[in-house]
Amino acid sequence: MIIDCHGHYTTAPGQLGEWRKQQLSAFEDGTSGQRQGPSISDDEIRESLEANQLRLMDERGIDLTVFSPRASFMAHHLGDFEISSEWARICNDLCARVADLYPERFAPAAMLPQSPGVDPASCVGEINRAVDEHDVVAINLNPDPSGGYWSSPPLTDEQWFPIYETMIEHGLPAMIHVSTSANPAFHTTGAHYLNADTTAVMQLIEGDLFSRFPELQFVIPHGGGAVPYHWGRFRGLAQALGKPTLDDHLLGNVSFDTCVYHQPGINELLSVIPTENVLFASEMVGAVRGIDLMTDRYFDDTVAYIEAAELTDGQRKAIYSDNVRRIYPRLHRRLETMGL
Amino acid sequence: MIIDCHGHYTTAPGQLGEWRKQQLSAFEDGTSGQRQGPSISDDEIRESLEANQLRLMDERGIDLTVFSPRASFMAHHLGDFEISSEWARICNDLCARVADLYPERFAPAAMLPQSPGVDPASCVGEINRAVDEHDVVAINLNPDPSGGYWSSPPLTDEQWFPIYETMIEHGLPAMIHVSTSANPAFHTTGAHYLNADTTAVMQLIEGDLFSRFPELQFVIPHGGGAVPYHWGRFRGLAQALGKPTLDDHLLGNVSFDTCVYHQPGINELLSVIPTENVLFASEMVGAVRGIDLMTDRYFDDTVAYIEAAELTDGQRKAIYSDNVRRIYPRLHRRLETMGL
Repeated sequence: MIIDCHGHYTTAPGQLGEWRKQQLSAFEDGTSGQRQGPSISDDEIRESLEANQLRLMDERGIDLTVFSPRASFMAHHLGDFEISSEWARICNDLCARVADLYPERFAPAAMLPQSPGVDPASCVGEINRAVDEHDVVAINLNPDPSGGYWSSPPLTDEQWFPIYETMIEHGLPAMIHVSTSANPAFHTTGAHYLNADTTAVMQLIEGDLFSRFPELQFVIPHGGGAVPYHWGRFRGLAQALGKPTLDDHLLGNVSFDTCVYHQPGINELLSVIPTENVLFASEMVGAVRGIDLMTDRYFDDTVAYIEAAELTDGQRKAIYSDNVRRIYPRLHRRLETMGL
Repeated sequence: MIIDCHGHYTTAPGQLGEWRKQQLSAFEDGTSGQRQGPSISDDEIRESLEANQLRLMDERGIDLTVFSPRASFMAHHLGDFEISSEWARICNDLCARVADLYPERFAPAAMLPQSPGVDPASCVGEINRAVDEHDVVAINLNPDPSGGYWSSPPLTDEQWFPIYETMIEHGLPAMIHVSTSANPAFHTTGAHYLNADTTAVMQLIEGDLFSRFPELQFVIPHGGGAVPYHWGRFRGLAQALGKPTLDDHLLGNVSFDTCVYHQPGINELLSVIPTENVLFASEMVGAVRGIDLMTDRYFDDTVAYIEAAELTDGQRKAIYSDNVRRIYPRLHRRLETMGL
């Protein structure tokens, strides 16, 4: 069984984006009021997936994807907390509909109604709702809701603790995932995403968050940004900071996904990060949609890299499904209920 | 011959730091006026190097280091342009004294008097001075003088062009190197440095700077941040942006240093980046000063990794010296003058 822990609904029907545009222009105009969400039929949802994610999942042998709202569309920097709340609810409801339509192919994960400068505790309500109404299996936590200006405190700051307490209460891991960069210095998927991964890990190394929350589980997407490539640097920095080894300090609570889009990068990831901390993912259909002319395969066909890597069958099974079932206990329960 | 293209004067005598403190507190107090630089004797300089950089260079077989002011001390975000100018002049003069004392062991590179919000053209004077008075072989260019708030335009913006024109006029490459992070989200050496490397490369991929300046040469330190690890992602993003291949778009003008502090990372770097684009460096004594208990060698002993990598003698020679002599023509001339 192959579980992809990192998929976003990047192909949602156009009404969703249209609705968002209207929401934001109403906000700018100061027009408030109750708004209905976009009207999207089940058939439109099916069509948006069957031509895209489901087709590629079938081609690559991916059984199930943990599916969350489009990361670049979260855009927490726009509007205010009310705007983000409305938007998060609509996007989370839509991913839940996907999982209801294809329960064996998708499991829902929730975005949060973050807003820069607003207390992260304000997100607890939407987490609870997403669990109660949709049985989500994970959340996406944005360490920089400002969109590339990095005005939030590090993830180790107690401001974030209400989110962590809620995650633990429900057995939810968090993928640490930023959204669109509003800062012209940072290309969204080529710089901001990777920088955020690196930044988050270094925040965790500097702090002692997991002594306080030993049950907390974070997934660092995009292969951990620069971290596995610079694993020696991070081991050395942890040592210089008087921290335990990264095995003890980090790897009980932090995993890395396999969204690294070429064989040498995947090989490097697998050679330094213990197998139990690597989760299969492709972030498809996502940042890099083209075909690699060097391999004639999609850049984001990460199954091909894992297949070609020097791994035992047991290691491959751990990366494809065992690890994610351990770190996403609600997903494991979902699958068990379906006899999977 | 082994040339380290990335060394900073991190061990300068304490008077330098004291002087800087006084400079900044005078700025805060609004006390202006002419100040003498710190008084540091030749013997004190010798002592600061012989116990540190020179000892380690001898132990590791490094012949010469391109030596620039301590990166984290540049702190362009503090003070204003006048403050940065005074500080850059003092730091550049000090590195030039090092090179005068040990001409076969150190060649000077200059920091710039950058200041956030100030036109980069204001740095041209100090570049010219550093060339005229000290025959520097390179400059360090900070893509984010705000210290982690990224308020400058991308490196492809025409604001930076006067610096590029001056570099080309003098045959100077630039190492793209940020300074201390003033943003609590970013650990300086564990996040900000690596993020800046990744960010800079993505800015260059998005733009077309080298069509405009075909002679420009940039060195991306710290093994290129996340870039070589995600080389497939960057190849795919370039393709999606309608750019030429990275070989054509980037690698005629961009090189990566070898400041990656473990063997798997170095192996990954060497497996994706062509040999001619890799420059030996250790950034020693720098970010990671400890001994790796897994190898019993210093983390930053990058000679050991290059020695252990699968390279031909010719490739090793290119990485150790030929490439840097090609990309740093003023260094090559210096060495030739000394019969090296």
